[in-house]
Amino acid sequence: MTSAKNNNLASLGEFGFISRIASASKQGVGVITGIGDDAAVTQLTPGMQLLTSTDMLLEDVHFRRAWHDPYSLGRKSLAVNLSDIAAMGGILRWTTLSLAIPAELPLDFLDEFTRGFLAKAEEHNVSLIGGDTCGSRSGLAISVTIMGEQLPGRILRRSGACPGDDIWVTGTLGDAALGLRLLEKDSIPSPLTGEGQGGGEVGNGEGCGIFTHPPAPSRQGRGRNILISRLLDPTPRVSAGLALAESGLVTAMIDISDGVLADFGHIAEQSGVGGLIRLADLPLSPEFCSRAPGLTGDFHALALSGGEDYELCFTAAPSNRKKIAVCMKKCGVEAVPVGIVSNLPEVRAIKSDGTPYIQNIHGFKHFT
Amino acid sequence: MTSAKNNNLASLGEFGFISRIASASKQGVGVITGIGDDAAVTQLTPGMQLLTSTDMLLEDVHFRRAWHDPYSLGRKSLAVNLSDIAAMGGILRWTTLSLAIPAELPLDFLDEFTRGFLAKAEEHNVSLIGGDTCGSRSGLAISVTIMGEQLPGRILRRSGACPGDDIWVTGTLGDAALGLRLLEKDSIPSPLTGEGQGGGEVGNGEGCGIFTHPPAPSRQGRGRNILISRLLDPTPRVSAGLALAESGLVTAMIDISDGVLADFGHIAEQSGVGGLIRLADLPLSPEFCSRAPGLTGDFHALALSGGEDYELCFTAAPSNRKKIAVCMKKCGVEAVPVGIVSNLPEVRAIKSDGTPYIQNIHGFKHFT
Repeated sequence: MTSAKNNNLASLGEFGFISRIASASKQGVGVITGIGDDAAVTQLTPGMQLLTSTDMLLEDVHFRRAWHDPYSLGRKSLAVNLSDIAAMGGILRWTTLSLAIPAELPLDFLDEFTRGFLAKAEEHNVSLIGGDTCGSRSGLAISVTIMGEQLPGRILRRSGACPGDDIWVTGTLGDAALGLRLLEKDSIPSPLTGEGQGGGEVGNGEGCGIFTHPPAPSRQGRGRNILISRLLDPTPRVSAGLALAESGLVTAMIDISDGVLADFGHIAEQSGVGGLIRLADLPLSPEFCSRAPGLTGDFHALALSGGEDYELCFTAAPSNRKKIAVCMKKCGVEAVPVGIVSNLPEVRAIKSDGTPYIQNIHGFKHFT
Repeated sequence: MTSAKNNNLASLGEFGFISRIASASKQGVGVITGIGDDAAVTQLTPGMQLLTSTDMLLEDVHFRRAWHDPYSLGRKSLAVNLSDIAAMGGILRWTTLSLAIPAELPLDFLDEFTRGFLAKAEEHNVSLIGGDTCGSRSGLAISVTIMGEQLPGRILRRSGACPGDDIWVTGTLGDAALGLRLLEKDSIPSPLTGEGQGGGEVGNGEGCGIFTHPPAPSRQGRGRNILISRLLDPTPRVSAGLALAESGLVTAMIDISDGVLADFGHIAEQSGVGGLIRLADLPLSPEFCSRAPGLTGDFHALALSGGEDYELCFTAAPSNRKKIAVCMKKCGVEAVPVGIVSNLPEVRAIKSDGTPYIQNIHGFKHFT
């Protein structure tokens, strides 16, 4: 991508912009014809099935230009899609990128966006094979389709969870949701409300036991940046998803984009089961907990239903607990059991004394 | 799709809308897991390669709700994508549909849109396997990805045209562009300008010889509807594209979305050739010509550069002319040679006296 002297797309034009992206894209495994024809031509590995997913990101709905630097936005646009293939245990292959671009958007913004998107693609050996660009009369709209592949016997679906299975999650929960809160207000509002976030009842949660004293200010500043970074530049669990698929130990899997409570709910629905999630076992980062002393709202709502975690939630027989721990350790990913699959027709969270945790709002809902 | 008592999406919700679409979708060839998991799982026919294309349609850029009934808009959203697979000579398989939906959009509109999209899909044995829905803070945005497959040796690309080849087009040109003019104004403006349309120099064209007298008014009304219908509900040349791929007679192919001059220009660029397009040989419909007597602008600009024809432009050796005519007749599609591939580094249109036809604007350009 050459440096831009133009301030917007008008002088470069649609085809100029496309050829600029095409020349910066690297053609990876299975790409026969990439950008530049009526359709891309690709070749699956013999014996594998195709995995396809798509996500749209809209300005002022999914992101704000004031908060999101274009490089990270490019990375995130691909990352949220990678997370869907990770959740199937797939091997990443190809992507398309469509952009509806407002006339006033600086070309520098687009160049940085594209650089971020392609950097994320290269990190994961994903080839950009096509897309569409057009002028937008309102904000920037981004539509990405991702394709991967996997052997039929290894693909992990939402169905397949069995009563008695452990419910696992990777990484830590609630960081991105708290990062959004920090961006929205420098202090934590109570009750917690807003897009991408579940609200919570004040004082209904349990204590965050990792830090009992407020950390030093310098540490707080760093923690703030880490939380915001998890929102703006999430890390999809691609290698963990693949390792779990290859392990044969997992009965069902999903990625956590709407909060573990809602997303395990999809596993429960498609597996015809229920589940209990233990509030005390939710993995919370030191950075999340370092903000807890200042948290007057219910921070468990963020971890349960905040959304945008892009971690994996999966189920497996308790007899496989050690093997899974070893498998995850090999990937350098933390994973912990946080609950148990039941044969009751409900999914709920419970406090450490066994009583139900009540939360009314389950993640961000469109159209409400 | 059940009838809607709700006026908008709020009461149905995102997942309600998705399950409504899912239950109305039919699962066709190669679909292992359709809508409802993190990614769709599909199976290519052994030996075939995957064809992927994507197009975005934005309200007030690509369509207007005042003109476009939702059923036709649904059909067209898929049709413009089908046309890209047709242009590769592909066999249609699967599609994804992403919608950014304004809060005030009636649920009836969405139901009719979906009904049109799925009807078009069923006509062409295409399975809807996934998508995304979200709230839009501005207009309706539609993003479709289409997938097809074909044997490697049959796929037709833009490269491959040879000097001396005929340049062919299917169907008739300029109808949709004229249909847009009729919608924009009940009388034809001069000079012709506007989105999706090339402008033209007044009086620079050649006569439309099919109708020398204005047709009767009733015929004019019907003709008007046919022209507008070609804009609102285009017919992609899927069976013709497939037959041409199987014939082995074609050296290069593209679909005509920006006008034959610009789109043959892409063939020329990727084949390293030039070409001459004979103005007098452009196929014009009786409906197009019936409007010609009232046309004070240059109607050849509409046929050459109007856009949204969704016909095919392809190249083939002159020795195959008869075989191609037979092949097209079997598909019930008219196709005519309209020019010749040259070894000069330019694409131009010529009048019947051999002098160049000069047109400054080559189709709609985004970002200008």
